[in-house]
Amino acid sequence: MLTQAENERLTSTGAGTAVGELLRRYWYPLAAASELAHHPTKLVKILGEELVLFRDGQGNLGLIGAYCAHRRAQLVYGIPEADGLRCPYHGWKYDRAGHCVEQPFEETVRPGNTFKDNIQLPAYVAEELGGLIFAYIGPKPVPLLPRWDLLVEQNVWREIGHAVTACNWLQTTENILDPVHVEWLHGEFRTYAAQKTGKGERGRKRIRHLKIAFDLADYGIIKRRMLEGETEESDDWKIGHWLVFPSTQKGPDMLRFRVPVDDTHTAQWYYSVHPVDGTDQQKADEIPLYEMPSPVLDEHGQPQLDLLNSDVDPQDNAIFVSQQTVFDRTQEHLGESDRGIVMYRHLLDHQIKLIQEGKDPMNVFRDPGANVCLELPTESREKFLTGRLGARARYSRRYRSILKVPA
Amino acid sequence: MLTQAENERLTSTGAGTAVGELLRRYWYPLAAASELAHHPTKLVKILGEELVLFRDGQGNLGLIGAYCAHRRAQLVYGIPEADGLRCPYHGWKYDRAGHCVEQPFEETVRPGNTFKDNIQLPAYVAEELGGLIFAYIGPKPVPLLPRWDLLVEQNVWREIGHAVTACNWLQTTENILDPVHVEWLHGEFRTYAAQKTGKGERGRKRIRHLKIAFDLADYGIIKRRMLEGETEESDDWKIGHWLVFPSTQKGPDMLRFRVPVDDTHTAQWYYSVHPVDGTDQQKADEIPLYEMPSPVLDEHGQPQLDLLNSDVDPQDNAIFVSQQTVFDRTQEHLGESDRGIVMYRHLLDHQIKLIQEGKDPMNVFRDPGANVCLELPTESREKFLTGRLGARARYSRRYRSILKVPA
Amino acid sequence: MLTQAENERLTSTGAGTAVGELLRRYWYPLAAASELAHHPTKLVKILGEELVLFRDGQGNLGLIGAYCAHRRAQLVYGIPEADGLRCPYHGWKYDRAGHCVEQPFEETVRPGNTFKDNIQLPAYVAEELGGLIFAYIGPKPVPLLPRWDLLVEQNVWREIGHAVTACNWLQTTENILDPVHVEWLHGEFRTYAAQKTGKGERGRKRIRHLKIAFDLADYGIIKRRMLEGETEESDDWKIGHWLVFPSTQKGPDMLRFRVPVDDTHTAQWYYSVHPVDGTDQQKADEIPLYEMPSPVLDEHGQPQLDLLNSDVDPQDNAIFVSQQTVFDRTQEHLGESDRGIVMYRHLLDHQIKLIQEGKDPMNVFRDPGANVCLELPTESREKFLTGRLGARARYSRRYRSILKVPA
Repeated sequence: MLTQAENERLTSTGAGTAVGELLRRYWYPLAAASELAHHPTKLVKILGEELVLFRDGQGNLGLIGAYCAHRRAQLVYGIPEADGLRCPYHGWKYDRAGHCVEQPFEETVRPGNTFKDNIQLPAYVAEELGGLIFAYIGPKPVPLLPRWDLLVEQNVWREIGHAVTACNWLQTTENILDPVHVEWLHGEFRTYAAQKTGKGERGRKRIRHLKIAFDLADYGIIKRRMLEGETEESDDWKIGHWLVFPSTQKGPDMLRFRVPVDDTHTAQWYYSVHPVDGTDQQKADEIPLYEMPSPVLDEHGQPQLDLLNSDVDPQDNAIFVSQQTVFDRTQEHLGESDRGIVMYRHLLDHQIKLIQEGKDPMNVFRDPGANVCLELPTESREKFLTGRLGARARYSRRYRSILKVPA
Repeated sequence: MLTQAENERLTSTGAGTAVGELLRRYWYPLAAASELAHHPTKLVKILGEELVLFRDGQGNLGLIGAYCAHRRAQLVYGIPEADGLRCPYHGWKYDRAGHCVEQPFEETVRPGNTFKDNIQLPAYVAEELGGLIFAYIGPKPVPLLPRWDLLVEQNVWREIGHAVTACNWLQTTENILDPVHVEWLHGEFRTYAAQKTGKGERGRKRIRHLKIAFDLADYGIIKRRMLEGETEESDDWKIGHWLVFPSTQKGPDMLRFRVPVDDTHTAQWYYSVHPVDGTDQQKADEIPLYEMPSPVLDEHGQPQLDLLNSDVDPQDNAIFVSQQTVFDRTQEHLGESDRGIVMYRHLLDHQIKLIQEGKDPMNVFRDPGANVCLELPTESREKFLTGRLGARARYSRRYRSILKVPA
Repeated sequence: MLTQAENERLTSTGAGTAVGELLRRYWYPLAAASELAHHPTKLVKILGEELVLFRDGQGNLGLIGAYCAHRRAQLVYGIPEADGLRCPYHGWKYDRAGHCVEQPFEETVRPGNTFKDNIQLPAYVAEELGGLIFAYIGPKPVPLLPRWDLLVEQNVWREIGHAVTACNWLQTTENILDPVHVEWLHGEFRTYAAQKTGKGERGRKRIRHLKIAFDLADYGIIKRRMLEGETEESDDWKIGHWLVFPSTQKGPDMLRFRVPVDDTHTAQWYYSVHPVDGTDQQKADEIPLYEMPSPVLDEHGQPQLDLLNSDVDPQDNAIFVSQQTVFDRTQEHLGESDRGIVMYRHLLDHQIKLIQEGKDPMNVFRDPGANVCLELPTESREKFLTGRLGARARYSRRYRSILKVPA
């Protein structure tokens, strides 16, 4: 149980806040490459800052302040040119560094004037990796974009999912440190929802957790579980699963990125891979993009079980939203099942201290040689992959037409 | 005309407020039995408190705090078991008294620990009567659920309507004490709306009110009217109609319950009966449930007359909403037509004084022998019933399939 | 760049504010005549005041406070009678001067009482001209409704468009003083949007502005532009275009009225004419009324280009909304292109001083002889009219059936 002040400290992500400054040391996905192929600009919000992401005519990515310095038109309506983004309202042009490089009418009537030299928008770096576009908005020098294993894996077929839930980032992240909910939410409740909706075959036997453990490791926290029938030699215990600091989950076939949009919204990107023989390579723009449901109650105050009777992510999202916008931790009662969450809160504090001492926190990489492929070992993924090729994209309300499942 | 402070006093229903404490002495409908047959949990809000209503595996009703004490998942996603409701997130189980009776993982790793003994959610009583589920959230001892006549009448066929209007409870209740509006809103305006929409046959001749009167009676206030052409022997004057304290209306064939959700929302339950020969008895779960319209202006600022050209309830609801969220009584100008409203406000004050003196207010029943059937006499209902069997359920957007009209 | 206080001063339109008092000296369109033909009442909001506009049984226009003085029912549900508007709730009747002239039940039980004599609603004047209904809510004596040329032109066929954008009035008005945006938003961006949506034929060649100028004139500000290829003898320079003070734009075939609804909403009325031979005269009620789109970003943060690839008004509206509800002028950077805007802000200040000195500001007309037809010269409109008869009404989601294009 936290005090109100402690809860506010952990959940505030604005510039200048303790957690906000820590979270600014990391790269986050903001878009799928396929989105910019559809339209070359996108309004994005990250850690409370409104920005426009764009791809210029040469294919370079830009990420600058969302509003033109002239008369505050939103640059998401901007026209990409070879070397920048032009405001649609009066044609001011910005380069990827946020410099104003052209003011057509100003230059017509006062050739050689220096007005534009004083115009500077916020500008950050954006990079594409594995079909996702990542951004870094923190202090310089800019660290390397981490090349987590699935992002750079060869001979796989990829799918990208997306959701925005109307809640604070922390409750979505604490869920990653919580092995026991899998037994209940993704076992008992899933089976209940499946049976109530006549899809009993989607049920999943609940298997009791006998013990759990958490270890601090290079890339974050490894959570371990021993289920009934397992031993300390089982993958669940011996290998475990990763919380990749600060807010990413690694599963056998999926990375789940939790991205703080602002203090009351969290974006999630679901990045999954399926091994294939590699003869039908996807281009980044062709990776299917789907929207993952975030179920809410129906208009009569009752659950939408038909969205909750199968995949784990809609189940998690329904719970996140049900905890209310900012989960009131002054009312929580943590127990043995929550030791991972307690460890995570301590880890947050420790990392905050590191940056206050001027040091790099965990997972800030600056050596390209060590960033070729950051391995996050998990159990064998054979059991996760059978027959699932393309399965997730059934959620897609977008880009379904570009879904190309290799034969 | 009230002062701002007086208006706030009469319209504030939170715990600890004068009116809020008075209103907590009563039972209110929160759901139709058919809703819990459809799904056994429902998120409800009453007098500002968020609760989850559920039916356990033995068929008992429970009403407990909406959020699990562990990590604040909403218990509307809970799984009913024989003896309680299990949180979907980590399996904590609560009984109907709000006690935490199981914490599976805590008990696995620390058998015999007493953690759960300190976990207690708010818990209240809920009872079903006549196909409605009522709740009481006030101080103990819990009074009896009043058995108003229509709720327990035999040989009738029932329909249940529901609406939520985005306004304070008091303006919906003052309407019950207001005989004259029937002449205008349900007469002149109804006819106008019917004519404007080409449904002139739905019009109803306006009959002038000659006098009105109000009497304090056992169960609330009896309002009387004498229309042009009537005498003091007419039912309208001699028998009159009930405001059943605090906020229920009794008509010949209908009880209308006004339920304070919070200070800015009021739920209404329309409970109507039609005498039938009784050979085709409805089960509680089979009573048709329909949504009653609460018309608002269209996108161009004009009335939706097609929702206003017939039944009285959508007409009332349109006016309630038009009075704005909390009707500004500092701007009202009451006259002779409003003597019932003035009497009602005095009655509220008087009942508040009673509870402040430690006494039971009006309509708090504790003697089962006197609560077999609480008779609320009205005029003969023959004229109200012709051809109306099942008529209201035409509004239903739900459960239409279970509408079974006896032949 | 303004201070926060300066920006608030220019954008606040409530009663008693400097700009609000100035803006109250003018007539504004509130409805199309066809709307009251469809239904004789309409809820309107102007400069923050909620009013009900109605046409009584004799065809006269009324504009009175939106709420009945009795129990605050909204009078938009009122029933028009020969000599006023009757409240639907209890039949109180108001005349067009806002006097309460009937309280049926009060008069029944206390004949001859004077209760109604003290009941007075706000009441203003409304007049129809050219198919639009205008209102004046400022101090008396009421000035004349200006007869701008297009409103009274003979032998034309008319169309009326309407939009409400969720932004402050000033950013929509400053756009009128901004010649250069036409080159970019309605040229370069339009062409870009047309090409991106496969409608390249809708593109329009961008022609460079060589110089711009602004002149204070009788009715407001004349803006002039010289485009590449033009001379000082070209219409664009010699005749120019009008900002009709305070917030109307005159184009060759269109008046665009910007109407402050409240500080965060602006209504726009697009009044266009097409010369015809006059044998098929429209009645005011038959003028087609259409909704003009105000495009916002789609759910994925990207522009709706299919609404932006042709007409100028949706392009303007998208930009207005993108500048945010109240454009933050503490972040603007004005240049040579914005000299008209600076002149307009000075003009606002000057007119505020005039009314503070007790004088009439610009465009307040009191001499009927001088108000027969207020000419606002523009360039020849031949090039604007080819093939456009009825074109705008394609936006109509209303009244399409009454669209009668002369052969």
